[in-house]
Amino acid sequence: MALIVQKYGGTSVGTPERIKNVAARIAATQDEGHSVVVVVSAMSGVTDSLIKLSRQITPTPADREMDVLLSTGEQTTIALTAMALNAIGRRAVSLTGAQAGIITDGVHTKAKIANITPRQVHEHLDNNEIVIVAGFQGETTDGRITTLGRGGSDLTAIAIAAAIKADVCQILTDVDGVYTCDPRIVPNAKKIEEISYDEMLEMASSGSKVMQSRSVEFAKKFGVVFEVRSSFNNNPGTLVKEETMSMENVVVRGVSIEKNQAKITIRRVPDHPGTAARIFSAIAASHVIIDMIVQSDSVGDTNDISFTMNKDEWPKAQSVLEPVVREIGAESVGAQGGIAKLSIVGIGMRSHSGVAARLFEALSNGGINIQMISTSEIKTAVIIDETRIAEAANLTHEAFGLSK
Amino acid sequence: MALIVQKYGGTSVGTPERIKNVAARIAATQDEGHSVVVVVSAMSGVTDSLIKLSRQITPTPADREMDVLLSTGEQTTIALTAMALNAIGRRAVSLTGAQAGIITDGVHTKAKIANITPRQVHEHLDNNEIVIVAGFQGETTDGRITTLGRGGSDLTAIAIAAAIKADVCQILTDVDGVYTCDPRIVPNAKKIEEISYDEMLEMASSGSKVMQSRSVEFAKKFGVVFEVRSSFNNNPGTLVKEETMSMENVVVRGVSIEKNQAKITIRRVPDHPGTAARIFSAIAASHVIIDMIVQSDSVGDTNDISFTMNKDEWPKAQSVLEPVVREIGAESVGAQGGIAKLSIVGIGMRSHSGVAARLFEALSNGGINIQMISTSEIKTAVIIDETRIAEAANLTHEAFGLSK
Repeated sequence: MALIVQKYGGTSVGTPERIKNVAARIAATQDEGHSVVVVVSAMSGVTDSLIKLSRQITPTPADREMDVLLSTGEQTTIALTAMALNAIGRRAVSLTGAQAGIITDGVHTKAKIANITPRQVHEHLDNNEIVIVAGFQGETTDGRITTLGRGGSDLTAIAIAAAIKADVCQILTDVDGVYTCDPRIVPNAKKIEEISYDEMLEMASSGSKVMQSRSVEFAKKFGVVFEVRSSFNNNPGTLVKEETMSMENVVVRGVSIEKNQAKITIRRVPDHPGTAARIFSAIAASHVIIDMIVQSDSVGDTNDISFTMNKDEWPKAQSVLEPVVREIGAESVGAQGGIAKLSIVGIGMRSHSGVAARLFEALSNGGINIQMISTSEIKTAVIIDETRIAEAANLTHEAFGLSK
Repeated sequence: MALIVQKYGGTSVGTPERIKNVAARIAATQDEGHSVVVVVSAMSGVTDSLIKLSRQITPTPADREMDVLLSTGEQTTIALTAMALNAIGRRAVSLTGAQAGIITDGVHTKAKIANITPRQVHEHLDNNEIVIVAGFQGETTDGRITTLGRGGSDLTAIAIAAAIKADVCQILTDVDGVYTCDPRIVPNAKKIEEISYDEMLEMASSGSKVMQSRSVEFAKKFGVVFEVRSSFNNNPGTLVKEETMSMENVVVRGVSIEKNQAKITIRRVPDHPGTAARIFSAIAASHVIIDMIVQSDSVGDTNDISFTMNKDEWPKAQSVLEPVVREIGAESVGAQGGIAKLSIVGIGMRSHSGVAARLFEALSNGGINIQMISTSEIKTAVIIDETRIAEAANLTHEAFGLSK
């Protein structure tokens, strides 16, 4: 008899039929003797429809009102899910984020959870009811509806699990778990049984978008063990938890790839203090996220500075950078697309030497040129030609024995 | 500088374009120097779509969850309306029923308003903001979402107007006001400038469904003067208020007609105490609403009892009545359709004699046979052949000089 939090994403509840399937799964969990709290997302497509509707009113809707609008998506799903459970003879009740006691700060459309007072959740659990909570949403202390931004429903599930001290938190989605690499690119990829929070974070920040980083960070902060698994079958998924001694035995947990990157190079940046700060604070102010940064050694009294970003962000960055480049007296700024990032992630890197070398050798054996390199404590990333990324992923996967 | 509550129905906010028109109207009201609170319904069609969605889950959804589901309809409209006002430079905020402090009893899908604590409404008004409130919904003291049933948005508007002591409450709809008769049937019908609550109630209960009776009753109880007017033009509408001396000078305020009626007759009901009670409590238990009741004089030791109801309700009533008829030892029960009700309504009837006679004479002159008669203090109603109803309405309208 455990207390279980289950989260079902938009695809899993995408149609009335699928909601009925989800209800059957929840009932089966209850039949195993467990108490169940369920967090659901909006049915797939609903959030986009609501955004489209708002755009018919104005291209720039107020954030406060977007939250009121978008939160109806999850509210619809909780009602339908509770109905589906009632229809098969289960006592179930729905709660909005506000009703479930999800208190957030006041930053509309991307609010942070401040605390949770799950009084109503406890009352219904004590009453032997299944509780269906709307993901992605909360309210401020002064009673405004807020939403948590992308990946917000995962965050709701993990935060609720922490608040009610759940024994298990299951993130049910349309994939079977976290894989050693994207199986569409590396057919030999294997499902990972256990992964540490830090590895999961590095995988997420490197393109393996099973979950948003903020949910993993929240889980890490509050020590919530969670499992990523499929809502369409009963296979065990991937357990995400604090690292254990045995995890260090694996040098590389997975290979993550990210396409659609661009490399920006600013040529002949005058080599004096403050120029780099001037460049990157301008980009930060435009909310463009940059990834790898490389500064070449000085040639005379100038440097070349290169960095990568999502290719789609370049026009926005360009309009910010061109005046800055003129202002600091650099020669030029230009972008090169057609590149991709490949990362290897694993906490075992800390205690194993030669990991980067093994990666470079694998790529070299395939005749794949490395354009940039970046390393962190548990990750090594390289930028290569986008057309070679599948080949590189398979070579790397093989080199670290991840198919076994 | 007045405090004005405006309510816009589903047709008035039926498309993004119409919501923008509504926003322009609200802005114009503010430009006249007024503070404005707006109550909106779900966009037309939305509630039906949600009901249809619920039916794909189960034919008998739980009432609690229907309320959670349906309340998303108005929540969508408040967000879009506030956005539309923001987009034209107005400070406007949306509030759900719960946020506006609409506290109801716990009878899901047809809750009654228990009280209103419009703290947030006042705060935003004090802040010179336009407040957009979701109609039709509220919450219980223990935090459950409820809906108010049919006509609930009118009720919200009138209740809010009472709670914040608004100077004016405008019910903006797709008709120009209350007419002396349905203009589609009586082309000479005129818009009524002023009507008393009681007349409005009798008109509503006689088929002139501009508003549900409960909203008018609420307005009467709390003395809320309201105006029914069109959201598609700027014509003055009909003012509904406490009766005044001058209202009595008009003998008949309007003619109301109701088609699609059925007359039920139970033959040879044994004439002893309790039989009528047995019949009508059985019907009441089945939630069928009956209208006129006539009991013939005793013939021997039995009576015939007749009553009318909406024709569509007959199958439900029949299944309840047949066992009762056998049980009490009456001869038979049968229904006759093809009839309609015509009512004349006016508080002037109290002080003017011969009103009923003038009605009967008008119908007689047209050769229209009267099948049943029912009278109240300010209403006289007759049942006639449905095929003659338009003719009867025009004759009656003329006889009481309502076209002038």
